[in-house]
Amino acid sequence: MAKKNVLIIGAGGVAQVSAHKLAQWAAEFGDLHIASRTVAKADAIIDSLREKGHQMPFTSHALDAMDSDAVEALIRKLEAGIVVNVGSAFINMTVLEGCIRAGAAYIDTAIHEDPAKICETPPWYANYEWKRREDVEKAGITAILGAGFDPGVVNAYARFAEDEYFDRIDSIDIVDINAGSHGRWFATNFDPEINFREFTGTVYSWQGGAWKENAMFEIGREWDLPVVGKRTAYLSGHDEVHSLAARYPDADVRFWMGFGDHYINVFTVLKNLGLLSEQPVTTAEGLEVVPLKLVKAVLPDPASLAPDYEGKTCIGDLVKGSLDGKPGEVFVYNVADHKEAFTEVGSQGISYTAGVPPVAAAILIARGVWDVKKMVNVEELPARPFLELLGEMGLPTRVIDATGDHPI
Amino acid sequence: MAKKNVLIIGAGGVAQVSAHKLAQWAAEFGDLHIASRTVAKADAIIDSLREKGHQMPFTSHALDAMDSDAVEALIRKLEAGIVVNVGSAFINMTVLEGCIRAGAAYIDTAIHEDPAKICETPPWYANYEWKRREDVEKAGITAILGAGFDPGVVNAYARFAEDEYFDRIDSIDIVDINAGSHGRWFATNFDPEINFREFTGTVYSWQGGAWKENAMFEIGREWDLPVVGKRTAYLSGHDEVHSLAARYPDADVRFWMGFGDHYINVFTVLKNLGLLSEQPVTTAEGLEVVPLKLVKAVLPDPASLAPDYEGKTCIGDLVKGSLDGKPGEVFVYNVADHKEAFTEVGSQGISYTAGVPPVAAAILIARGVWDVKKMVNVEELPARPFLELLGEMGLPTRVIDATGDHPI
Repeated sequence: MAKKNVLIIGAGGVAQVSAHKLAQWAAEFGDLHIASRTVAKADAIIDSLREKGHQMPFTSHALDAMDSDAVEALIRKLEAGIVVNVGSAFINMTVLEGCIRAGAAYIDTAIHEDPAKICETPPWYANYEWKRREDVEKAGITAILGAGFDPGVVNAYARFAEDEYFDRIDSIDIVDINAGSHGRWFATNFDPEINFREFTGTVYSWQGGAWKENAMFEIGREWDLPVVGKRTAYLSGHDEVHSLAARYPDADVRFWMGFGDHYINVFTVLKNLGLLSEQPVTTAEGLEVVPLKLVKAVLPDPASLAPDYEGKTCIGDLVKGSLDGKPGEVFVYNVADHKEAFTEVGSQGISYTAGVPPVAAAILIARGVWDVKKMVNVEELPARPFLELLGEMGLPTRVIDATGDHPI
Repeated sequence: MAKKNVLIIGAGGVAQVSAHKLAQWAAEFGDLHIASRTVAKADAIIDSLREKGHQMPFTSHALDAMDSDAVEALIRKLEAGIVVNVGSAFINMTVLEGCIRAGAAYIDTAIHEDPAKICETPPWYANYEWKRREDVEKAGITAILGAGFDPGVVNAYARFAEDEYFDRIDSIDIVDINAGSHGRWFATNFDPEINFREFTGTVYSWQGGAWKENAMFEIGREWDLPVVGKRTAYLSGHDEVHSLAARYPDADVRFWMGFGDHYINVFTVLKNLGLLSEQPVTTAEGLEVVPLKLVKAVLPDPASLAPDYEGKTCIGDLVKGSLDGKPGEVFVYNVADHKEAFTEVGSQGISYTAGVPPVAAAILIARGVWDVKKMVNVEELPARPFLELLGEMGLPTRVIDATGDHPI
């Protein structure tokens, strides 16, 4: 069988990491392509590949990914077998549609969002992606949803706990701590628009078999995690809470995001003033402006943070459950280093943790291990091959269990 | 001699107060007119006059006050003898030009600003207004600069101390405390654009016979003032520091503005993110936006605060000096009440304190007492007639001196 051509869609910080990882693992694939609305951004990524000594040819393309006809046409033209969608969260459905029509495997790293809506009500995946399950199966393609780090690797961590530790799962607490420092007065680690949108709506968690609603920053808890130490994280809404709640309906599923007081203060000021709104306001001069778009424009480009970023991230799942009626708990986690990420691929750690996993997923599709010919979330797939491959690719998994803290 | 017709230019919160006061003191004047870029705003003020039972006719006019030809033409058409400029700080020079050409007296309440520049270097009045001194004198008109509360009444307070207490003045500390509460999460008391522009640049004060530069919120001091009690105020740049420094070059002249921690926090976040910039930024969608204009658009309209505003303001001058070699100090001040202002003229206290004094100045011009046929700042005019008239008009002056706390 011929090796599959791969098309990356997107040219931001995460796309840069995915491109570097695809280049490193090029032997698994056929031709490599990258498409972006602004082709210069894709070319800049190709330049960064050359700087790291990759001679193999990534080809760049201009693409309006909101146009499914254009997506389909590009996939057909390139004979792409796998599409890695690491563009904005607004393009998922049009890119998926293009893959369905052109018969390419689809991988993304975040849930679809409608630009006009903030924080839709659960079940989130069922609002858009899962409606296309039948079409994906009919088309005979593989579509892996949410294959970044969180969602993505943390879903596999839950599945890993299920596969190797428990026959009943009582709770899954996903904790995401960035203990790094970028040295700026304020910056978001990824697209400010997406970052803030995550936290401006209601916080949904799955507890006691039902959706529970809280306000952002309402529920904080101090965690004591490997390497990063004691950190406060806040109950937050996040993609994987929904899909994990569907697989583990009897378990409590919560997502905890670490925030410093400074972030919370800036966020609170912007939100309370109405500057995080996605609804246009009109200035005295008659100009229509979406406040969130302006806030994005004044904040540092997340990609620009990479050279100065120092410190570690720790992201993991605390899973409680029982085996043969005997209760236990396990913490499955990864620690990543911002500087190491920059040295390797020219990106900061947040982009690194998000950009490597979809390439691992692409490799597993290429190898046939994950080429399941249907739409799945990561927890529906065998976890160990994914986690072991991620270990080889720079995102090793460790476990704290009854025997101590050790690699998987 | 025929009574002078008066033309108000501007239709914001301060203009509303000035219109009500002119209506109350209509016997001093001929016809009353109000002009605004948006004539509906002028009409709304006329409606509010009718609601308070004023039957006399204020006539509204549409005017682009940045166009000195249009200003001149309107003054001529209305045969206006006095122009009360309470519009934006950007229109001073064009309105003054119109007055010079048409031969009308000119009164404003704040220094001229170029929309493209924030916090110009001193001497501020000499940047624009004072360059027109000769032209004003040649035209034989009276031009009274900065005749609001601060600048304005506080300049008269300094002159009052000079006239009635000291033969040498060592220091003038102007303190402006708003101890009122508007009940909103955040709002500015007057045009957010002007409000923030005051505090985004270097803080200039006159100390030791020279301009001293500080950063905003760098120098704070706790004051213990009548009625409002202990409050922290910060060394700030302000119009009157310059003109007072010119009259009292041997005295230290400082301006202190009271700020709560909440205001400082919001201001600091907006400033550090670049959201108070008057320089346009371009969004990812290619839209050019001046951040400060958007911030203004999302904040509450200062006029909308009036109905809920409660509490008092205290603004005064602590003047230290000596008489016949004997040192002393005097605090000259006014306390105003937000609710009383709203009940009387439908505006909050900040607008009230700014909007009454230019009408007092207009009355003194009409009466001839202040019709000096040249350009002056308030401290160059006799203070007692102004302060006594302000007492009759709702802004009584009190003094704390060696004999205690008493009315002037």
